[in-house]
Formats: sequence, structure tokens, C-alpha cells
Amino acid sequence: MNWLDNGELVARISDFLSEDLGRGDITTQATVPPDSRGIGRFLAKEDLVLCGLEVAESVFGHLDPESSPLETTVTDGDEIKSGTIFATQKGFADVLLAGERTALNLIQRLSGIATLTRQYVKAIEGTKAHIVDTRKTVPGLRMLEKYAVTIGGAKNHRLGLDDGVLIKDNHIALAGGVKEAVQAAKQKVGHLHKIEVEVTNWGQLREAIKAGADIIMLDNQTPEEAAKLVEMARNMSENVILEASGGMSLETVRDYADAGVDLISVGKITHSARAMDISFKIQTL
Amino acid sequence: MNWLDNGELVARISDFLSEDLGRGDITTQATVPPDSRGIGRFLAKEDLVLCGLEVAESVFGHLDPESSPLETTVTDGDEIKSGTIFATQKGFADVLLAGERTALNLIQRLSGIATLTRQYVKAIEGTKAHIVDTRKTVPGLRMLEKYAVTIGGAKNHRLGLDDGVLIKDNHIALAGGVKEAVQAAKQKVGHLHKIEVEVTNWGQLREAIKAGADIIMLDNQTPEEAAKLVEMARNMSENVILEASGGMSLETVRDYADAGVDLISVGKITHSARAMDISFKIQTL
Amino acid sequence: MNWLDNGELVARISDFLSEDLGRGDITTQATVPPDSRGIGRFLAKEDLVLCGLEVAESVFGHLDPESSPLETTVTDGDEIKSGTIFATQKGFADVLLAGERTALNLIQRLSGIATLTRQYVKAIEGTKAHIVDTRKTVPGLRMLEKYAVTIGGAKNHRLGLDDGVLIKDNHIALAGGVKEAVQAAKQKVGHLHKIEVEVTNWGQLREAIKAGADIIMLDNQTPEEAAKLVEMARNMSENVILEASGGMSLETVRDYADAGVDLISVGKITHSARAMDISFKIQTL
Amino acid sequence: MNWLDNGELVARISDFLSEDLGRGDITTQATVPPDSRGIGRFLAKEDLVLCGLEVAESVFGHLDPESSPLETTVTDGDEIKSGTIFATQKGFADVLLAGERTALNLIQRLSGIATLTRQYVKAIEGTKAHIVDTRKTVPGLRMLEKYAVTIGGAKNHRLGLDDGVLIKDNHIALAGGVKEAVQAAKQKVGHLHKIEVEVTNWGQLREAIKAGADIIMLDNQTPEEAAKLVEMARNMSENVILEASGGMSLETVRDYADAGVDLISVGKITHSARAMDISFKIQTL
Amino acid sequence: MNWLDNGELVARISDFLSEDLGRGDITTQATVPPDSRGIGRFLAKEDLVLCGLEVAESVFGHLDPESSPLETTVTDGDEIKSGTIFATQKGFADVLLAGERTALNLIQRLSGIATLTRQYVKAIEGTKAHIVDTRKTVPGLRMLEKYAVTIGGAKNHRLGLDDGVLIKDNHIALAGGVKEAVQAAKQKVGHLHKIEVEVTNWGQLREAIKAGADIIMLDNQTPEEAAKLVEMARNMSENVILEASGGMSLETVRDYADAGVDLISVGKITHSARAMDISFKIQTL
Amino acid sequence: MNWLDNGELVARISDFLSEDLGRGDITTQATVPPDSRGIGRFLAKEDLVLCGLEVAESVFGHLDPESSPLETTVTDGDEIKSGTIFATQKGFADVLLAGERTALNLIQRLSGIATLTRQYVKAIEGTKAHIVDTRKTVPGLRMLEKYAVTIGGAKNHRLGLDDGVLIKDNHIALAGGVKEAVQAAKQKVGHLHKIEVEVTNWGQLREAIKAGADIIMLDNQTPEEAAKLVEMARNMSENVILEASGGMSLETVRDYADAGVDLISVGKITHSARAMDISFKIQTL
Repeated sequence: MNWLDNGELVARISDFLSEDLGRGDITTQATVPPDSRGIGRFLAKEDLVLCGLEVAESVFGHLDPESSPLETTVTDGDEIKSGTIFATQKGFADVLLAGERTALNLIQRLSGIATLTRQYVKAIEGTKAHIVDTRKTVPGLRMLEKYAVTIGGAKNHRLGLDDGVLIKDNHIALAGGVKEAVQAAKQKVGHLHKIEVEVTNWGQLREAIKAGADIIMLDNQTPEEAAKLVEMARNMSENVILEASGGMSLETVRDYADAGVDLISVGKITHSARAMDISFKIQTL
Repeated sequence: MNWLDNGELVARISDFLSEDLGRGDITTQATVPPDSRGIGRFLAKEDLVLCGLEVAESVFGHLDPESSPLETTVTDGDEIKSGTIFATQKGFADVLLAGERTALNLIQRLSGIATLTRQYVKAIEGTKAHIVDTRKTVPGLRMLEKYAVTIGGAKNHRLGLDDGVLIKDNHIALAGGVKEAVQAAKQKVGHLHKIEVEVTNWGQLREAIKAGADIIMLDNQTPEEAAKLVEMARNMSENVILEASGGMSLETVRDYADAGVDLISVGKITHSARAMDISFKIQTL
Repeated sequence: MNWLDNGELVARISDFLSEDLGRGDITTQATVPPDSRGIGRFLAKEDLVLCGLEVAESVFGHLDPESSPLETTVTDGDEIKSGTIFATQKGFADVLLAGERTALNLIQRLSGIATLTRQYVKAIEGTKAHIVDTRKTVPGLRMLEKYAVTIGGAKNHRLGLDDGVLIKDNHIALAGGVKEAVQAAKQKVGHLHKIEVEVTNWGQLREAIKAGADIIMLDNQTPEEAAKLVEMARNMSENVILEASGGMSLETVRDYADAGVDLISVGKITHSARAMDISFKIQTL
Repeated sequence: MNWLDNGELVARISDFLSEDLGRGDITTQATVPPDSRGIGRFLAKEDLVLCGLEVAESVFGHLDPESSPLETTVTDGDEIKSGTIFATQKGFADVLLAGERTALNLIQRLSGIATLTRQYVKAIEGTKAHIVDTRKTVPGLRMLEKYAVTIGGAKNHRLGLDDGVLIKDNHIALAGGVKEAVQAAKQKVGHLHKIEVEVTNWGQLREAIKAGADIIMLDNQTPEEAAKLVEMARNMSENVILEASGGMSLETVRDYADAGVDLISVGKITHSARAMDISFKIQTL
Repeated sequence: MNWLDNGELVARISDFLSEDLGRGDITTQATVPPDSRGIGRFLAKEDLVLCGLEVAESVFGHLDPESSPLETTVTDGDEIKSGTIFATQKGFADVLLAGERTALNLIQRLSGIATLTRQYVKAIEGTKAHIVDTRKTVPGLRMLEKYAVTIGGAKNHRLGLDDGVLIKDNHIALAGGVKEAVQAAKQKVGHLHKIEVEVTNWGQLREAIKAGADIIMLDNQTPEEAAKLVEMARNMSENVILEASGGMSLETVRDYADAGVDLISVGKITHSARAMDISFKIQTL
Repeated sequence: MNWLDNGELVARISDFLSEDLGRGDITTQATVPPDSRGIGRFLAKEDLVLCGLEVAESVFGHLDPESSPLETTVTDGDEIKSGTIFATQKGFADVLLAGERTALNLIQRLSGIATLTRQYVKAIEGTKAHIVDTRKTVPGLRMLEKYAVTIGGAKNHRLGLDDGVLIKDNHIALAGGVKEAVQAAKQKVGHLHKIEVEVTNWGQLREAIKAGADIIMLDNQTPEEAAKLVEMARNMSENVILEASGGMSLETVRDYADAGVDLISVGKITHSARAMDISFKIQTL
């Protein structure tokens, strides 16, 4: 059992197909004999990190519970070269045609995220830092996109607002200060949660560590500023986890890693990934 | 009544919020007094074509049915300069914090699509051609993304597989030929539908027009090839609608328009739009 | 894959059964041993055009996923004589009893529609006209009833308000005239849609064709008036599609067909079809 | 609070509208200015017993929660003469157009049921018998149709299989006899339920009364046979309730009432009612 | 087919699992290899009447449709001794771990109800009275808890407010008296329903029987008072069914049975049953 | 905004009411005039810690969106004496009658949990330990019951399997040891999560702390054993959080607190709380 098997995803795949099919695929109904069978081939039209094989398979499985499994020799996370046919799906032609666009829309977007993530991961290779994602995902696809991030080689930050404590500037202002916010959080949230605080300067950082924050997010610092804050933070507490955040590009990300942070969160890997170019060609059987 | 008011969108906004909130915004619950009120300001951090004001408003309205309306002097489709605060939302601080990310994720993506679409529209300004979208949208956001396309100034192609007849290579192969496919479609689909056929060469184009196709999609042609096909098509039928499709870039799109087609479909405006940079800063009231 | 297999129908069958079963079939639970098996026979008690075999089968399949398929040698659309046992279903007695009424209510109504439709179709046999349905269907059964219409031999008009443009008197009044309405529609709806306009006199008809309407609905005309309008319309445009509408009876429908229209829409075939007399007798196995 | 206000109906109205609206009323969106207001008038085009005013109102209320209430001086159950405008609805023109067909489909069918029921009720006026309905209703509309029956002046039989014990021939066969079935039911169902048994001859009737049946359904008897069975039953038990069932027509129903039964169940009033002719004309305001 | 198989329960089990799993079992995902298999053993840690075997099985079946059936030699209703392993479930370790708590929460609560019910049933053994339950069940578990009551050996009272007529003090006050309430009920509810009236003294009891009540609930009487009312009631009507209600304890319940009532309703068996102590130990395979 | 306002609870209240109302409150419909108004008074019939005021209010609000708010001078968490009328609800009599049982079932159970929790909290007053709950809640009521626990004065443990890492004996066995399990968890779960490990002896405890566990659950120890383990643990790590678990009774719980643990988890406060005795009497207005 993995989370891709669960009822939630099944319900969502069903919604996605309904969105595209509406009252039915009228072109196929009019032109394709209902018992035609075919084979569809997924072809990478550029180099990419593949993500979404099981998701694509579940699209066809939803349309025809007796459809055969997707045939493939690769797995999510593999680097696929342009020109490679990486998976094939056999079945009724009308099923292949009805599922084609939904399967492609998913696999293209998820591979886009995995591919971009992998670039960030490689950019900091050899440092002790990890890339983490953000909550800047397409509404409705949070869990799928977070999955693509892990396939790309990065780690997940909070899955939702209930999945961890992250005290930001707004909370600090409304709570009456860094210390007040951290103490309120330590007292009220469950004993299994750590406390992360977003800071923008040394004063806030010091106050947060003193108040007992477990993790500090250094927001919108230059790599040099970040390095300085990391050093000062480590002097106060060896165990505090440090995260850099804000406008990371492939060019600058390594500088942050070199600054000594543990985590670097990158919104771009989800909110601005483009679709990978993948086609699905169907041949009659 | 417009489609943004309908029950479908309301249900979806609810799902989007559930996805992010899960069992609740534990940070805010722990640190912000429940009766704090604030004002949130949407700030454009780059030039953009705005899209999603009503959608963002409905996010906050969903969390608090008595929340005040979004205050703004602009509307969807306006071009907003970097640095502009384009809308403000007042309300309970916990409502603003709970809705912030979902509202931003939507308005950033929709504005991204509208902005990119506007660039394509401007690229062919002065020609008789229109930009149209495709079904290459993020699953679950089809109608919102199609709306953003119209806000950007382009037109919608099919909303789903039930929304029009588009005979593609796969249908032609399975039906036994262009003529067979077109005739089957003309006989079986309702009298309110036109028939569009995707062709890749002059032979197919001629057969399609002869069989009575109303619209021809010229797939993956160079601008020169497209121009030649357009001329030959017009010689056969004055009224046939001609669409160019396949890998349009901002650099090449005008050449296709100049080739004389009526429509140019662009997948990129939805599948590869990046999120616009927009922030939402909350201030205590 | 046909539309009867889809998730929508499955969900609806489930709702239909819940409506009838509520908290359970208390009579059967009290009187029938849970492991009794039986065979149920569908018997036509009057001549009819059969419709709904797969729907009935799915009722029993929903109650017991392992139930055997409906056994039958006929198919939807066949003309069944009174006294014929046209299908049998084996299974647990409690499943047969729980599904009996829902299966009958569906098959009786759908056969009623198919039978009445067939009469209209036969009434105009030999003319070039086609019978089409309307949106006057029982709420919740639209797609099933539209299916029954095709089984009866007629064609479907719009499946819903999104499935085609039909400009009626109210739209004309609100748009400011026939010409204004048609032009607005041509400009705003997608390129795959034709434009149909409802007219009641020659002035409107002429204006509609001039404005570029593809289809004209002649509303509430006598056959003689219709014939005259058809002739005048054909003089203006050879290709315009003409539809007669309004209060068609089995006695008058042929006169409209003879008037030269292409389509005749009949509300009665759905809104006033009566249930065919069909019984389901269960025998212990 | 009455059952028409409940969440179930609201959900169903929403489904009905979705079924008709799909992705939106494209004709109205293209031709009618979004702020146009109008008034719609419901006009009876034949004599009828009205049913469905609140249902129709809820259709428009669902589309626009701020729409004004339906204006009317009549109520469900009133007999309306052909030519009467019996209700008017003001609102945005696009709301009136979007709700028109769903409201009409409901009010026409429910009035059809109420009108036919009233004819049966009048046919037995002056006798002590009551007309009751059956479960032969359109799937999905059970409660609305049962409501229309009461508006017509008849009473409801079981609302579903859980709403009462009715032992039929199949149960008797499977239980091993009338006596066995009645005794099993008396022992197993709750103390608040009476036991009804369907019989086809004197032997069964006698056995059922002896076993303690509270109600006897005389199935498919001629009026003369029914009269004889009624007399014999009353000799055995003064309090037993007697119901006649099977193929009741307006011509024969009074003979059954005169035979002395308490209840006469009529499937036709729901399964074969035709839609009443009602129109909804919209005028610009 | 029994009610435990129905779609309603399946949907509920799915909701229960979602409630506990949220976005997934993060501990198991992190620590247990996905292909590990195990065997889980249900162990009674105190004497109990077992209830919920099929419910527990359906929890695991929902998580893995191909999971093997629960292995057991006992059935719901059996009395299990402390220390007995009464059922085992084999499957993937992650499935066993994900379903463990939900399965236990259900089987522990249902067994708690069955066990407490059995004690009440035994307390009145040998009398002619029956224990019945009330509507004092945990919201969302009504049908499961009513099932546990029957497994414990008692009978069900009304399943919901639509499942029978029970006129209480509030109804009497609002209707204007016992007689008025009973007569209104007899006239308006269907012929398959009996009428029960709650009374608190002899005056009300007499009025209710005279008005034709079928069942009388004697509310909050001492056993002596109940005995007196039973005698007076039987003198008026041999067939009236008498029910005692209000604060029944295991100590006093037999006195009420001895008072001659037919039914004794006990809220405690559902609203105050405690969970039975049952564990589920998993062993690697 | 608090979690009680959210869409999830609204949906659940709707389900709860449907469960009880089914097709409608037939007794009230038959006996109570639809425009009667009344006032319902909630009366505590034993001493209790109140919980569920807003939940009860939302039941009536769901039935009648225009119903007046619940009138009360107390709040959740107050200790109410037997005999106190603690809240009143005005409204239509049929609304009060329809909501009565659902409102009571909720408020009685939640108050039962809050009351029992308060007793445990008081039993350890003056120590540094806190009572926490478990996942042993009634399926479907998890969040409501966890809320009642906080009202009673205790803290919540995990809200679900996704809400924290708790490594139990089964995980340890399947992972291959304490160390292996803790390390796997530290590597794979997000940086915001702490790691809790269940141990049963000193060997496991030492291994867990060494591997970096943040929290240790001491399962099924006597108070003396617990005290010894606490001391040894503190010697290894000052910051480790220690939790006692397993079969806590009101008699023994203080001994565990005195043993020096930080947290004591008690399943009984949810799985075996009995309903508090509360009535709701309606008076005509």
C-alpha cells in the first residue's frame, strides 16, 4: 500500500477524467468501432526525469478496470533521454483515446517538477544541504506535486498548514513578538511538533533561538548575510536547524548551500515548472 | 450569474482549502488571538496581466461567509505594474492567514496564464488570426485556466472531449481513412456541431474538405508549408476554417498568422505558464 | 467503453437503489433465508421497443458485484412481442428482490420512451426528415432518456445548455434583435459550434439567415406555414438546416416532414411517455 | 420546516441544474447582457392540478441565493384553468433562462401526477376507500412524486422497502407458505410495523388473516371477486385493512371502491402520468 | 446480501480510515519495508460478547481489495473468554498497521454494546418481556450500534424519526392533547404504521388507548406503578403493547419485566457502553 | 474562525441529521402544526463538565438557517451542577423536535468525555505531568472527541497517523530493531517532526535515546518501574520527553505522575466515557 493507491487519488483521477470527458468523447464514439484495440506508446520528446507512471496507469485503469497494466522497464525518478519510448499501454482504442490527455497532462507536469527539482538537487551536490519544497503547488494537486518533488530528489516541507508549525512575520506581529509567538506555540501544539520561525535579521534570530525555536528560516538574505547568520546561530545552538528561503535560482542556490544552511526551500520547483514534452501515439492492434 | 458563481467552483474552492488546511492551521491557532483583525494587501512584484480577483475573493468568502468583499479598483485583464498593490482584503487575521496561500496559488497561476496568453495575442496583433488554447491544462483547473486564457485575450478551443468534434490521426487510422472518419462524424454527432479534422499533408487536407469538414487543423507545419496549404484549401472552399497547431513559440507565432490561418492553438499558454510573483502582506488592524 | 459504463451512471444507480432500499428491505430480511437463490424473468406484457438491458443488469451488479450477467438473446432496440420473456437474471433471492423495482422502473420508462419514439420515427419513414428530442426530460435521467431516444431511432438535440447554441425568443428580445443575437453568438462561442435560431415568422427567418445562422427552428407553425418558410429559406441558402418544433402529434408529424424540414423535435417522446408493462417474476432455484 | 426544505432536495436540485447546465448556458452568455433583469411568468396551457411551486422556486433560489421569492396567489393542490398565469419570478435574465427548463420539467411532471391522481380520487368520491400510490416512481424523484400524490388527494403507500412490511408472492414462495412468512415477519420486524400480505385467492387470504396479518392486498381480482373476498375477510376479522391492487383504470376504479376495500393502489398515477402543458415566458424589465 | 455489505457502510469505512490516516501513516512509511507481510491476531483481554467481525474485515478489505479474508472460527454473538485469540488477519504489514486502530475502535465499541446488551437480556430471562434499544446512539454509527444490539439479543426500537410514530409529551402539548395527537397520527401516517404514545399517568394511558393507540410507553414509572398501569391497560385492551422506559439499570430491569410489560427500552446499552479490551498483535511472516 | 466552523463539521452534522431523520419526522409532521414555535431547555441531570454548546447550536442552525442562536451564559469547560438549565434554544417546534436527539447525543457524549478527562486532570494536579489522549476514539468523531479532551483540560496526542511519528513494537520488529527504526524515521520524515518510540524495557529505552529519539513512551510499566526508567533516561538526556501509557485508572494515574513522566496517555477518557445525563424539554411559545 502506498499513498498512490488510496481512495483519495482514485476519487481525484475520476474527477480529472470527468472534467475532460464531460458527457463523453463524441469524436471517438462517432469514428472508432467500440471493439477496436490499440497500443499507446509514451515517448519522451526531450530529456527528462520521469514521474507519474503509476498515476498514468491509474487513469486507464479507472476507465477500464480490466485494462492491462502499463508495460515499462523504467521507474519514477529515472532519467529518460529524448526519443525514448518509456512505457506502453494496451487496451480498447476508445479507452486509450479517452485517457490520453488526462494521463499526459499529469505525467508531463509531474515530470516537469521532478526534472526541475533534480537540477536544483544537483546544483548543491556535495554540500550538506537539502532542497525542500513549499506549499506553492497547484490547488488540487498538492500531494501529487509533493510526490514529484521527492522523485526529483528533494524533501518535502509542510504538506499543509496542519503539518507543522512555521511562525512567519504575520504571526510574530499578531502575537506581539518573536518570543511571545514561540512560547505560545511551544505551549499549545502537540509534543510531537518542532517549532520553526521565519526571521529576517540577527535580532529576531537570537530571540527565536533563545525562546526555544527548533528550526530557523532565514528569509530573503543574500548568501553572505546567510553565512553570517548561520555562524552566529551555530554559536548559540549546535542543534538548531537552519533553512534559507526566498527567490532561489539555479545560479544562486549553491551559494546558499555553501553558506552552511541545512535546508533550502525553493518555490519554483512546483509553481513554475513547465510541462515536459511527452507524446502518446496510438497504433491499432 | 457567471460561471465563477456556480456550485462547481464553490465545491472546488472548498477542496483546495481542505487540501491546505487539513485538520487546521496549527501555527495560527497557537499564536494569533482568535478575534484579531487585519488587512491583507495583494502586491504585484513584477509586471503582469491580472487574473483571478473573484476567485481569490471566494477563497476568503468560503472561510468566512460574512467577510467583507475584496476591495480593488482594477479588474481581471488589466495590466498591472510591478510594485502595485492591486487589491486588499479585510477580515479576521486567522481567516486571512488560512486563505493566503490558496488565494495566492490561484491568482499567481491564473495571472501567469493570462500574462503569457497576452504576449501571444500581442505577437499576432493586426493579423486576422486568433490565438486559441488546448486541453493541455492542469487536471482539476480546466475551467479556471480556460477562463484565464480569455482574460489574456485568446479564445477557447474545446472545453472537453464532449465539446466538439476533432478528428485526429488516431481516429483516422481507426476509422479507415479521412473520408470515412468525417462521414461517420457528420452522420452521428448532433446537428449543432461542426467537424474539425487534423491533417499533416495536402492529400489529407483535400480529402477532409471534400468529405465536408468544417475546420482543418494543420498540424506541425512550418509557416511556409502552412501558407501553401492555406492557399490550396481556400481554393477548394472559401468558408473552411483553418487552424495551425504544434510547438508555437512567441518567436514563430506571427509567421503562422501571416500564413493566413484563422486560428493558432498554443499549448504553452496553459501547460507551461509560470506563476506570477505576487505577495500578500497582512497588517494588524 | 460506452457511456453506460461510466462512473456517473454507477453513482446514479447507487442513488436509485438507496432511494428505494433506505435502511434495508425489511420484508425480505424477515421472510427469506439469506442464502436462497432464484431466477428472475423479465416478461413483456405488451408489445414494446426494448431499452435498458444494460441498465437493469447494472442494478443487480451493483447489489452483488459477483452476480452473474443478465441472460438474454435480444438487444436494446429490438421490438418485443407481448408475452415474451426477454431476459433472465440469476442470483441470491434477496438481491433479486432488492433490485426488482428499481430495475423495472428504469427499463419500463426507457422502453416507454423508445417505443413512443419508434412510432414517431415510423410515422415519417421515407421522408428526409429526422426526429430529434428536446431537453424536456425527467431531471436526473437526462442521459438515460436521451439514450432511449436513440434506441428508438431518433437523434439527440442538445444534451444540455452547454451543448450548443439555440437562440430563442427570450434571447432575441434581450439581445436587441435577431441580427444582434446571432452576431454576438458567432463572435463569442467557440469555432466548433453552429448557431441555431428559433423564429416564428418570415421576417425573423430572413434576418437570421442573413446574419449567418446555420440552423433555423420554425416554432409553432402549421405544416402549410412551415412548407412556405422552408421554400423561402432554401431560396436564400441551400445549406441552412431547418427544424420544425412545437406540439407535434403522431397524426401531424408527417405533414411537417413533408413540408421539407430536416429535423422535427418532439417533446412528447420524453416528457409524456408512459411506462411499458413489464413484470419480473422470481422463481426459487 | 417541511421535507421540501431539506438538504436532500437542495442537493438534488443542484444535480438537476448541473445536468442541464453542464459547463454553462453558452447561448445566454453570448447573447444576453449579464445585468439584464426580467420577469418570468408561468402559464397553464391546459386545466391542471398545480404541484411544485416551492420546488420551482428553489431552482431559481439555487442559481441566485438573493433572488426574490416566487410571486403567486395559489398553492399546490389548486385547480388551475388553462390560460392562467399562476406564478411569476423576477430576477436576472440569465438566472431565469438557466433555471427555466429545470423548473418546468419538475413542475410539469409533478402537476401531471397531481392532476391524474385527482381524477382517480374524484372517481371514488363518496366511497370509504382511499387511493394510494406505489413504488413505481421515476428513480431519483421518489419523494417528489410521492408528494405530488398527496397534493392530488391520495395517500402514500410505502416510501421504500424499509418503510413497511409487504409480503408478496415471491416472499411466500421463499418462506415456505403464507403462514410461515407472516409469522417470521411478526417475530422479526419492529413492534411499530404492521404486516401486509398480498394474496390472490381465498385460501391465501384466510391463512394470512389467521396468521395475524394486519392488512391484505387483493391482487389482480375483478371487482366481483374482490367484493366476495372482502365479505369473507370481514367475517373473519372486523379490523383487517383491505387493499385492491392491479391494473386500475379510471373506468374500473370505482367498482373496486364499491367492492368495499379500504385502499386502492394505482401505479399509473406515477409511472404513466404525462407532463402538463405549462410555459414560462420571460419579459425584460 | 446483508446490510453490512451495502454501499453506505463501505463509504463510512472509507471515511473512518481517512479520518485516521489523513495524508498517510508516516511512521510505517518511514520504518517498514513496503513488501513486508504479517499476521495480526485479535485477542480478547476480558470476557465479552463479540460483535464486529465483518466490519473489521471490511476495514482491511478497503485498504487492500486483494487482502485475504479474516480467519476465524467464531461469529458475532459468541461469548469469548479473556485470553482467546478469536480471529487473525494476514496481509501486507503496512495494511495491517494502517487498519489496526480503526478496526479495533469499531470492534471494541460494538462488542461493548453487545456485551452490555446481553447482560440486560439475561437479567430478564424467563419473563415475556424483550429489551429494546433507543435512538441514543453515537451520531454516524446508528446502524452499526443497532446491529450490535441485536447481536446482544435485544430488539431494535425505531431506527430513525421516519421509522415509526412515537408521540411524546412535546407532541401531546403541541397537538392539544393525547386524543388529538393520536387521531391526527392515525389519519395522516401510512396504513402500515402502528401508533405508540408515551404516557406518565393513568389519565393519559386511558385516553391513549381509547383514541386507538397500538402501543403505550410507560415513562419513568416505578416497577409498582408500572405493574398497576399494566393491569389497568390490559383491562381496557388485551392487544395493546406496553413498553417501560426510563433509567433502567441492571438491578431494576427485572422488576419491570415482572410488572408485565412487553418491552423495556434501555438507553444505556448504546449511550454508555464502554469499549471492550481487545488487542491486535502483528507478527512478521 | 475555529475548526468548529469548518465545512467538515457542517457536512458531518448534516450526515448525523440525515441518519436520524431519514425521510422525515413522521410523528411531528402528523401531530404538530408547522408554524408552532417553542423553546427548548437543556437541563443537566447530574454534575458535569459541559462540552458541545456550539455543536448543539449548529444542529439547529443546520435545520433552520434562520434559527436564533443558542442562549446561554456558560461556555464549554464550565462545571455545571445537576439541576441547572444551562442553555435554551428558541425556534419552530418541528425544528426543535427534529434536532433534539442529535443535539443531545452529541452534547451528552462530548460532556461525558470532558467530565471524565477533568477527573484525570485533577487527579494529577500539582505534578508536572499532563494527561494526553489516544487515537481510541469513536470512528467519525475523532476531531470532536479530541476537542472534548482539551475542554476537559488535557492535551491531544496524535490526531491521526499522519500527525506524528510514533514507533511501536510492530515497527521495531519490522524495521529490524530500535536503532534501525529511529534512524529510518529521522532520515525520511520531515524536519518539523519529532520522533517518539514506545519501549518496554531499559535496553530499548537506552537504544532509542542513543539513536536520537525525542520522546519515549514507557508502555505498560508499574509506577515503580516507570520511576526507575525515568531516572535512568534523565541521566542519559535531560531533554528527552517521557510518556507513560497503558491501562491508566483514576486510582493509579497519580503514581505515574509522581514517577516523573511528562505525559500520561489515557485511552479510557475517549473509548469508555459514558454519556452525561442531559435532557431537552420543549415548551410551546
